[in-house]
Amino acid sequence: MAAIGGHPYSPSDIELPGFVPQQLSPLQLVVPLIGTSLLVITVIWLVSGRVLNTGRSARLSKADRLIMCWWAITGLTNLIIEASFLFTRNYLTKESPSFFDEIWKEYSKADSRYASRDTTIVAIEVIAVFLRGPASLLAIYAIASRKSYSYILQFSVCMGHICAMLVYYITAYLDGMNFCVSPFYFWTYFVGANSPWVVIPTLIAIRSWKLISQSFHSSKVNQD
Amino acid sequence: MAAIGGHPYSPSDIELPGFVPQQLSPLQLVVPLIGTSLLVITVIWLVSGRVLNTGRSARLSKADRLIMCWWAITGLTNLIIEASFLFTRNYLTKESPSFFDEIWKEYSKADSRYASRDTTIVAIEVIAVFLRGPASLLAIYAIASRKSYSYILQFSVCMGHICAMLVYYITAYLDGMNFCVSPFYFWTYFVGANSPWVVIPTLIAIRSWKLISQSFHSSKVNQD
Repeated sequence: MAAIGGHPYSPSDIELPGFVPQQLSPLQLVVPLIGTSLLVITVIWLVSGRVLNTGRSARLSKADRLIMCWWAITGLTNLIIEASFLFTRNYLTKESPSFFDEIWKEYSKADSRYASRDTTIVAIEVIAVFLRGPASLLAIYAIASRKSYSYILQFSVCMGHICAMLVYYITAYLDGMNFCVSPFYFWTYFVGANSPWVVIPTLIAIRSWKLISQSFHSSKVNQD
Repeated sequence: MAAIGGHPYSPSDIELPGFVPQQLSPLQLVVPLIGTSLLVITVIWLVSGRVLNTGRSARLSKADRLIMCWWAITGLTNLIIEASFLFTRNYLTKESPSFFDEIWKEYSKADSRYASRDTTIVAIEVIAVFLRGPASLLAIYAIASRKSYSYILQFSVCMGHICAMLVYYITAYLDGMNFCVSPFYFWTYFVGANSPWVVIPTLIAIRSWKLISQSFHSSKVNQD
């Protein structure tokens, strides 16, 4: 599989000495990822519906329960998949690569800045792993316990996602958009796989914004 | 003033062909900046105190009025000083540099990524000029008109600032922290001049977070 430069990435003049070719196929990577995600969604949906909605507190709405599923998916992505990239500096050269090493080899075909450990990418991942990941899991707890900080916490993590995506795409554009091996990888991974992290945080941020504004409006009305 | 490489920046091997040395002294740059800032603060403080606090609406607190001064300073910084960097690609080589070109020549001594137009820096400035700048001025209007979205708007701009500062400092660290000519410039500009944009957004974000949580708490109490 390795092309010029001993690796399949673009541009081909990136130097990756000791590169060990990818062993798992895209299907072998994507199917377990989607399967695990569906399992997590099912568990969170069932637990939030049966266990959390039995007490005396107000029932969690279907929207709240779906959003809890999202926070589980994104939080675990930050704390497992992205943490694996951040802490496995030698993932391209390991003789016995893990499943996650193989994921990053695959994704690097759509954005070789992951293979070359571009500074901006690493900075984005530091923020994802240390701040957004824990905050996403805290959001599940906050929704489940109907905390009064629930919406502002969710809003802040969404803002973090949107900022990260802006920096991610703007730097790719400014650096010449030559990190992707083919239009297929561009549309499926670089655009497609990232699109939930643009669309869903935007929707949750808009929802939180509206609920927070309404809350101030009604407390103002109550004061008058 | 130009050292090895025809320019005073660090590392000295950055190539900046056609570099025109700085003509204004640090004092000639800093005094007008501080003077204008004090003027803006005075105007916003007086207008918010006399004009806006005369109607039937609830009086603006001193904290609100001080925070309006901050949004004016940071919004104008985004829309004038940072926009000047973004849109003046040739600011290092202009024969008749403007005041703002000289500001960026001076600041580049603390962070030569501005002189070399590093991609991350440009991406941060794109977000500052097109999103945070207009949003900061909108925050002044929102506070003045007691809009119900006032705190969530302020919180989101603060989150944007904090994200930008995180990316700014983490990438500097990862890239080896060799962009600064001396410890003096490191502490006065790279740390000192940026510190208000770390401390004040953090304080405003904490205040907004508390007020938003309180608002949800009281609307919950009212419901019960």
